[in-house]
Amino acid sequence: MGQATRVSLSDLVRVFGGELLGGGDQAFTGIGTLASAGPSEIAFLSNSKYRPQLAATRAGAVILGQADRDATPLPRIVTDNPYAYQARVSALFNPLQRPLAGMHASAVVDASAQLGVEVAIGAHAVIGRGARIGDRAVIGAGCQVGEGAAIGAESFLYPGVVVYRGCEIGARGILHAGAVIGSDGFGFAQDQGQWLKVPQTGRVIIGDDVEIGANTAVDRGALDDTVIEDGVKIDNLVHVAHNVRIGAHTAIAACAGIAGSAVIGRGCRIGGAAMIVGHTCIADGITVSPGTMVTKSLSEPGTYSAIWAAEPHREWLKHAAQLRRMEALSHRVRELEKIIEALERKPS
Amino acid sequence: MGQATRVSLSDLVRVFGGELLGGGDQAFTGIGTLASAGPSEIAFLSNSKYRPQLAATRAGAVILGQADRDATPLPRIVTDNPYAYQARVSALFNPLQRPLAGMHASAVVDASAQLGVEVAIGAHAVIGRGARIGDRAVIGAGCQVGEGAAIGAESFLYPGVVVYRGCEIGARGILHAGAVIGSDGFGFAQDQGQWLKVPQTGRVIIGDDVEIGANTAVDRGALDDTVIEDGVKIDNLVHVAHNVRIGAHTAIAACAGIAGSAVIGRGCRIGGAAMIVGHTCIADGITVSPGTMVTKSLSEPGTYSAIWAAEPHREWLKHAAQLRRMEALSHRVRELEKIIEALERKPS
Amino acid sequence: MGQATRVSLSDLVRVFGGELLGGGDQAFTGIGTLASAGPSEIAFLSNSKYRPQLAATRAGAVILGQADRDATPLPRIVTDNPYAYQARVSALFNPLQRPLAGMHASAVVDASAQLGVEVAIGAHAVIGRGARIGDRAVIGAGCQVGEGAAIGAESFLYPGVVVYRGCEIGARGILHAGAVIGSDGFGFAQDQGQWLKVPQTGRVIIGDDVEIGANTAVDRGALDDTVIEDGVKIDNLVHVAHNVRIGAHTAIAACAGIAGSAVIGRGCRIGGAAMIVGHTCIADGITVSPGTMVTKSLSEPGTYSAIWAAEPHREWLKHAAQLRRMEALSHRVRELEKIIEALERKPS
Repeated sequence: MGQATRVSLSDLVRVFGGELLGGGDQAFTGIGTLASAGPSEIAFLSNSKYRPQLAATRAGAVILGQADRDATPLPRIVTDNPYAYQARVSALFNPLQRPLAGMHASAVVDASAQLGVEVAIGAHAVIGRGARIGDRAVIGAGCQVGEGAAIGAESFLYPGVVVYRGCEIGARGILHAGAVIGSDGFGFAQDQGQWLKVPQTGRVIIGDDVEIGANTAVDRGALDDTVIEDGVKIDNLVHVAHNVRIGAHTAIAACAGIAGSAVIGRGCRIGGAAMIVGHTCIADGITVSPGTMVTKSLSEPGTYSAIWAAEPHREWLKHAAQLRRMEALSHRVRELEKIIEALERKPS
Repeated sequence: MGQATRVSLSDLVRVFGGELLGGGDQAFTGIGTLASAGPSEIAFLSNSKYRPQLAATRAGAVILGQADRDATPLPRIVTDNPYAYQARVSALFNPLQRPLAGMHASAVVDASAQLGVEVAIGAHAVIGRGARIGDRAVIGAGCQVGEGAAIGAESFLYPGVVVYRGCEIGARGILHAGAVIGSDGFGFAQDQGQWLKVPQTGRVIIGDDVEIGANTAVDRGALDDTVIEDGVKIDNLVHVAHNVRIGAHTAIAACAGIAGSAVIGRGCRIGGAAMIVGHTCIADGITVSPGTMVTKSLSEPGTYSAIWAAEPHREWLKHAAQLRRMEALSHRVRELEKIIEALERKPS
Repeated sequence: MGQATRVSLSDLVRVFGGELLGGGDQAFTGIGTLASAGPSEIAFLSNSKYRPQLAATRAGAVILGQADRDATPLPRIVTDNPYAYQARVSALFNPLQRPLAGMHASAVVDASAQLGVEVAIGAHAVIGRGARIGDRAVIGAGCQVGEGAAIGAESFLYPGVVVYRGCEIGARGILHAGAVIGSDGFGFAQDQGQWLKVPQTGRVIIGDDVEIGANTAVDRGALDDTVIEDGVKIDNLVHVAHNVRIGAHTAIAACAGIAGSAVIGRGCRIGGAAMIVGHTCIADGITVSPGTMVTKSLSEPGTYSAIWAAEPHREWLKHAAQLRRMEALSHRVRELEKIIEALERKPS
């Protein structure tokens, strides 16, 4: 994208650490995969599955781990965490492209809204009464920031994000297009065969450094708030219900659903399409496998699963049918046990 | 939220019924949970799990059921349905905040559109040719109401809702941000290895008092209409396919998917992430558990499930592997049965 | 919808082929189902389930397959693929309604954007720097087309679509409301208990004749691109992660999720709510059943499944509990086998 950044391996080691092996002076212009990087680019090896590509790479240099320090004659940086290292190098070559500060003429910003310095507000964006936008924040085209909502410094809302009234987003957040923050929780009281709406008067409070994916929806709390702590990363099309709490640095993959009042600890990993039932509590550091339904609280560390892997259709039908026959099989075994017992007791 | 509403328990009993025990004259300013309500607020006890909090609550009064009528010395209202009662009281303290009537200067409203009285149309909203907006309806900022579409009286569209051409929404509906009503159904004919689009010429017809969650999508019918009856409540990120019919007062939780031409009865409860296969028919009043796939029509009342609960990963692998071994086990039992039969026949 | 198109069966056979039986001169004004079509409309029979409706239909003519050629005395067209035939006829009666060419005064189109001939740009749409819009393309109200993005000729973006910077969509595409193309992939490196963002520098490249449903999200690639080939059809609320490749003419039903770097072949059918795990490879022509999780690459043609069908709740609990008892049952059978072996060896 026309970046003019040029850095040498020596520059990188000075800033990010790591051990330099081979010539450190060549200037590089970007980062790529072992398969796609060219002579003026740096590649990386973080997944051993790709080690065979090392011999054939056209890259000018490589970032790799201790185990692979001598696996190539190319100039290289050796580091304990090559994937994190390449993330830092890539961010250097590809900084987040913030639009120029300023407010597009078509944006509708309430006179009472408080705007920090160097804020960028895109075309047709709408900022409500008393909203607060932090320094250098970016409000993309067509975004809607409700009355009294707050967007932290350097946060970046891509086009079409909706933040409802009173919700708060911390610093350096990234919200992707179509994300909705603060819609009403699904709260209804059954009353004579009909549903009576329970007003959702809480807010959504989101910490610093949180990223939220495209078309993800986070509901406001019913009475208390829905809370997402610092450093949480949420993928696309995730549902976060009212009064959920998500602990710091937890990552939630796409299509997951977190039902009402669930409490997820810090540093958890929730797999794609996983579902967490309401009012459960997931302890710190737990991993939930993709497509897995958590039906009760989990207090012991570890990985939890409930996945059936796809099989050829007929095989699957045969296997699935077995489950329904198990009770009968169990009875047959009980009958055999009785007979055997009788046979054994029988004098020979 | 700056509400100035002040009501006494006597006021509440006069309007909503219930039995008043203890002083009824104190003016209250809001409602809260037993854990969070203060002396000028009313708390409620509808879930017995929270009964232990009754002793320590700082609330000035409590709404509770007959079973708990003497469980606190606080002023209280006794009612058969405390959850519905608190919903009504909360709505009194927290009425839906409608913006002032009027049309924002940046809204684009076709000259042929019919607007009722006291309609509020937000910034950058677009109302198409011949669309009809009912009295006191609210069209949020950036909403798109297509040509010939109709929005009923007092309906409330939050920012960024899209209603396609010709679709109709009844009175008092609530549509959350990102909801899409009337996108094309997924109709394609296979033709020599390619997909031929089948025009989707039906509409979406939505009754009165329907709430639709954030980023939920309801497809228009292929030839006939997709129909959602009165009082239906749909959560976030739900997919409703073409020609689906959803009966009155049914509730559908988040991340559910209803495939084409499925017919869901009245008063059903469809759990989160449940999936209803196409062309099935679900009878009135049926409950489908979360994460459950309904593969064929259900005519008997009751609750239907197919959920595997998360287990520690290794336990799960062991259990899941058993299913594949069942056929062999079944054969072994058959062998044993044959041998036993022979042994029993054998003269001793 | 006020179409004035009038065609006879003779006209249809001349254009689309098929065999005409019965009078071919009557002019018809539309197409409908056997149950709903009237005397001036043409019905069709493509699903044998609806054959009983043939006797009672009020339709003036019928499209049907060879097997049903003599099943009605009505004027009729006999064809090998009646569903595809009716799709063509319906498209004739119901052509995609393109708005008049032109740019709404409220649209914000960068001076450097390249617009083809007869382009229609709706109210409040935003077209970024250097974006290219092909001939006769329609950019709906409130759409956002990012810097350097490209929309092919005759493509149709419904209101509220967001196309990020640099992404490309081919000719004749249809993108429904709320679709997001090019949001960042979910790429983070774990670094001392926190997540470090990996810049997502690839693009999304979409071929010709692709349809993408409402609120579906397609992420841009991490370093290389995310690629969707010609003729792919994607339903609502689908997640397509970074670096996924989807082969030509594959169809993906609603609520499915395709995880990072998965490669799906040509002509596949992915069922609703199916989940494809990352870095897997699905061969051409494979069908994945609804709600099925694909955990590893599939190279053999065929249909793959892993579905549990809903049962009455108590039945399900009983069946599901059996799985956990299988290990014990297996041990009991082993014990029986040992005893039998001993009994058999025992001299009688």
